[in-house]
Amino acid sequence: MTIKVYGSKQSTCTQRVVLALHEKEIFDYELVTVDLQKGEQKRPEFLQLQPFGKIPVYQDDEVTLFESRAVVRYIAEKFPDPEGYFLYGRNLKEKALVEQWVEVESQNWNPVVETIVREEYFNPTFFGKQPNEQLVLENLLKLEKLLDIYEAHLSKSQYLAGDFYSLADLSHIPYTFYLIKYAKKGQVIASRRFVKAWFEDICALRSWQKILTNFLE
Amino acid sequence: MTIKVYGSKQSTCTQRVVLALHEKEIFDYELVTVDLQKGEQKRPEFLQLQPFGKIPVYQDDEVTLFESRAVVRYIAEKFPDPEGYFLYGRNLKEKALVEQWVEVESQNWNPVVETIVREEYFNPTFFGKQPNEQLVLENLLKLEKLLDIYEAHLSKSQYLAGDFYSLADLSHIPYTFYLIKYAKKGQVIASRRFVKAWFEDICALRSWQKILTNFLE
Ligand SMILES: N[C@@H](CCC(=O)N[C@@H](CS)C(=O)NCC(=O)O)C(=O)O
Ligand SMILES: N[C@@H](CCC(=O)N[C@@H](CS)C(=O)NCC(=O)O)C(=O)O
Repeated sequence: MTIKVYGSKQSTCTQRVVLALHEKEIFDYELVTVDLQKGEQKRPEFLQLQPFGKIPVYQDDEVTLFESRAVVRYIAEKFPDPEGYFLYGRNLKEKALVEQWVEVESQNWNPVVETIVREEYFNPTFFGKQPNEQLVLENLLKLEKLLDIYEAHLSKSQYLAGDFYSLADLSHIPYTFYLIKYAKKGQVIASRRFVKAWFEDICALRSWQKILTNFLE
Repeated sequence: MTIKVYGSKQSTCTQRVVLALHEKEIFDYELVTVDLQKGEQKRPEFLQLQPFGKIPVYQDDEVTLFESRAVVRYIAEKFPDPEGYFLYGRNLKEKALVEQWVEVESQNWNPVVETIVREEYFNPTFFGKQPNEQLVLENLLKLEKLLDIYEAHLSKSQYLAGDFYSLADLSHIPYTFYLIKYAKKGQVIASRRFVKAWFEDICALRSWQKILTNFLE
C-alpha cells in the first residue's frame, strides 16, 4: 500500500496525521511537502485534492482524504493497533468516549490554543505579523477555564477517554506542544498537577518522540 | 432501553442529536429541558453531566455522552439503519468520506454559520443584545466562499459524501435552517443551484419535517 501525506513538517494538523500513522507502526509513507509560506496550498493542483486549500491531505490506494481528524479516525479503524494499544477503545462505549474527547479537542481546545499559537508564534515567525495581544489575553483566560475542567477530569481518569491512550489524547499533542515550546505558555500546563502529568506521559510515547526528532529538531 | 436527551427544542446542537435518533426511527426518548435563558446549563447538577456547561447530553443504559457530533456518531454506529439508509456509509471508504464532511461542517461551516445566527437571531431574540454587524458581514463573506466550494462539489455529488444521505448532510441541517428561516440569509443558499437543491432535498426528509412540527412550530 502506497501512502502519501501532503503537508508540512511544521504544520500541527499534518503532525496529527503522521502521529496516528506512527502509532500504528506505519513508517513507510511519503511526506509530500506543501509550502505554506509560498502559498502552495492555494494552487490549482492542490485545490484538486483539497478544495478548501488547507493541509494535510492523506492518500492511499483506496481514498484521498482531508480534514486531519477524519484522517486519524480512518487510520484508527483501518490499521490494526499494536499490542496494548486501543486508539479507538475496546468496545462501542469506549469508542463513544474517545469520540467525545476528540470533539472536545476540536470544538473547545483547538480554537483557543490555535489562536494563541498563531498570534504568538506562527504569525511573527513566518509571516512578519505582530501578535494581537488583546486576542491572546482573551484566549489565555478561556484556556485557564478549560484547563481547570481538564484538571478535574484527569484527577479521576488516567487518559481523556479512560485508562487507555487514545485518538483523543493523540489529537491534543501537536498544538499543545507548540503552545508550550514555541508560544511559551507552558505555565498554564505546568501549574496543574494532573494535566502536567498527563501531557508529559503522552508526549513521552515513542511516536511523538520520533516526530520531534524527524520533524522538529 | 431508556434514552434521555438533555437539551432544548430551540438548540441546534440538541436538534442534531434528536434528528439522528429520528433517522434511526427511535422516537421513544425523553427530552429533558435545560433552559439556557435561565442559565440552567451552568448549574452544579448539570455540570456533573457536562463539565463544560453546554447542551446537549445524551444518556442511555450504557453511556452518558456529550458533544453533539460524538453523540450522532455513536447513534449511527449503535442502532441499525432503516431500509435504504446508510448514515455512516456502506464500507470503510464511504465512512471515511462521511467523516471528512462531518469535519468540514464542524471546522469550516459551523463557526461561520453559528456566528451569523447568534448575532442576527439568538442574541437579539433571547438575550436582548444588538448584533455586531461588522462580524456578521465578515462571516457572510467567508460563507459565500465556502458555499462556492460546496456548489462545485454538489454539482458532481448528490450528497456530501457520495450518492447517499449521511451523517454529514444531517449535521448541516439545523444551523442552516436557522440561517435561512431566522437569520434571514436564505439568499446565499437560494442563489446557488446545487446547494439549493441539496438543502431542499435533505430538509424534505421525514425526520427533519417531524422535528419542525414537534420542536419549532
Ligand atoms: N480542520 C483542518 C485544518 C487544516 C488547517 O488549518 N491547516 C493549516 C496548517 S496546520 C493550513 O493549511 N493553513 C494554511 C491556510 O489555511 O491557508 C484539519 O484539521 O485538517
Ligand atoms: N460542540 C458542542 C456545542 C454545544 C453548544 O454550544 N451548545 C449551546 C446550545 S446549541 C449551549 O449550550 N450554549 C449555552 C452555553 O454555552 O452556555 C456540541 O456540539 O454539543
